[in-house]
Amino acid sequence: MKAGILGYGNLGKGVEAAIARCDDIELKAVYTRRDPSGLKIKTPTALVKSAADLDSGKEDIDVLIICGGSATDLPGMTPKYAELYNVIDSFDTHANIPTHFANVDAASKRGGKVGLISCGWDPGMFSLNRLYATSILPGGSDYTFWGKGVSQGHSDAIRRIEGVKDARQYTIPVEEAVDRVRNGENPELSTREKHTRECFVVAEEGADKAKIEEQIKTMPNYFADYDTTVHFISEEEMKRDHSGLPHGGSVLYSGETGTDGCNHVIEYRLQLDSNPEFTGSVLTAYARAVARLNAEGVTGAKTVFDIAPAYLTPLSGDEIRAHFL
Amino acid sequence: MKAGILGYGNLGKGVEAAIARCDDIELKAVYTRRDPSGLKIKTPTALVKSAADLDSGKEDIDVLIICGGSATDLPGMTPKYAELYNVIDSFDTHANIPTHFANVDAASKRGGKVGLISCGWDPGMFSLNRLYATSILPGGSDYTFWGKGVSQGHSDAIRRIEGVKDARQYTIPVEEAVDRVRNGENPELSTREKHTRECFVVAEEGADKAKIEEQIKTMPNYFADYDTTVHFISEEEMKRDHSGLPHGGSVLYSGETGTDGCNHVIEYRLQLDSNPEFTGSVLTAYARAVARLNAEGVTGAKTVFDIAPAYLTPLSGDEIRAHFL
Repeated sequence: MKAGILGYGNLGKGVEAAIARCDDIELKAVYTRRDPSGLKIKTPTALVKSAADLDSGKEDIDVLIICGGSATDLPGMTPKYAELYNVIDSFDTHANIPTHFANVDAASKRGGKVGLISCGWDPGMFSLNRLYATSILPGGSDYTFWGKGVSQGHSDAIRRIEGVKDARQYTIPVEEAVDRVRNGENPELSTREKHTRECFVVAEEGADKAKIEEQIKTMPNYFADYDTTVHFISEEEMKRDHSGLPHGGSVLYSGETGTDGCNHVIEYRLQLDSNPEFTGSVLTAYARAVARLNAEGVTGAKTVFDIAPAYLTPLSGDEIRAHFL
Repeated sequence: MKAGILGYGNLGKGVEAAIARCDDIELKAVYTRRDPSGLKIKTPTALVKSAADLDSGKEDIDVLIICGGSATDLPGMTPKYAELYNVIDSFDTHANIPTHFANVDAASKRGGKVGLISCGWDPGMFSLNRLYATSILPGGSDYTFWGKGVSQGHSDAIRRIEGVKDARQYTIPVEEAVDRVRNGENPELSTREKHTRECFVVAEEGADKAKIEEQIKTMPNYFADYDTTVHFISEEEMKRDHSGLPHGGSVLYSGETGTDGCNHVIEYRLQLDSNPEFTGSVLTAYARAVARLNAEGVTGAKTVFDIAPAYLTPLSGDEIRAHFL
């Protein structure tokens, strides 16, 4: 199976690392909107090409893994390339998923291709676990906790404050709340009761730290509804202690059966040293499914909900029944 | 959708309870190999019929949920009825799955039906999580811990010992081992290091308790390889404290990405007040998928690996994308 990667930020690099561990997938090229001659990639056998090369629809790839941002890249990119190639993206702007799905569906069907959107861990593996749980135990309650992990969006929001040189924001689940759900209490939890936010900030020399802290803690949507802690640190400390991108979290689901009030708790938990490398690994497994489904004649937009798990592995049906059932 | 249940033991009752919570599934009949006139069921609108009535192939059901035992019932039952109806079972004798799959596949294809085998939580949801994890992070290590929960097989084994009136055996995961896996240590764990076994025994009057305890602890396959604790209790205590059938456990998977040794831990955990009611709920969700797939023209044997999650819910694609993605 031949794959292409469009975009070589953290996620594109994560996909490249995942493909390197798959014997059945060959990375043919990384496509970039920047000058290809300025880009060095890790895979010695893959080419670096211009994104413009994709426009012909003639690139020799079974699937294009699109590693752009949800805000401005993917809404245009994924439908554009979905007509020409089998594609997969990690679109995560929840409110716009219906529109994005419809656009990709139309394009994929025009081109006779498969386009899988919103893949990764949330949306992605967490979504799957919400669906499995509610299908098994209808009428229960689901809870999603994120962290401990770095939120890029919140880190960026802090960096936009005057006097801030660098920032890293960790989202942290409130363990007490997680435990209440695990105990089957079905609590009603406010935003503040579910997560706290911890910020590490490098201030410009002479900046008003008290004002920065105040601006962070009162920032609407991002921080105002949370208990937020702010630590000012040096550039060296930032580099030494906060250069990784760990993340994770849990989907918990609590539901009843029978008439005697039997309660059941289902938990799916991820603890990730590298958010982009794990997300890239999920995209790569689903890219395999996308190429296979299209080879079977399937077309149109899909999500993780539409993919039978057997399509994610290079192993045969006999092998997976023997080893994993 | 119209469903039938074959067999009305703990699992059949669990399926009945699950169907009662599904608006889109109607329980038409419970089929029994005993005298139907002697069987009372909970669903007022469903019939109690003889299993022999199924032989005509004319029963008005879209799927038959077969709730028999793996040792002697299912190897014959499932292939027999797979030719006549869409069927689903919870076959869990691991070594015989290839044969059972082949038998059901041949029968289902002859009859133009779908037959899903080995459904429940292990095999079933745990299997799915092993497959998802290894597909995302190939080459990692998986660990399955069971409990705390009642093992029927082990309880039965104790009951066969002379002088034992009743017995209940709990399988308990060793928390220290679970924590080592959660910490990404990838430990090599012996049988004894993963689980302990706790037994509650009601002895006959005058029985030699020391001898019973010795026989339990040295029983090959069942107890000899484990640290086992035996408590002798009264019949009243057994009834009061050990009448439920709780179970659960975890599938943990630990795998790497990239070249810097980023480690990731995936955990799927179940905590079940009632093993048969939860298993029945999983069977019911997959029964829905079986009937749907056959209505689309699909035939042959399937496992949970072959079922796209969207088939498990009565909700539409638009609804699941809006609520769970």
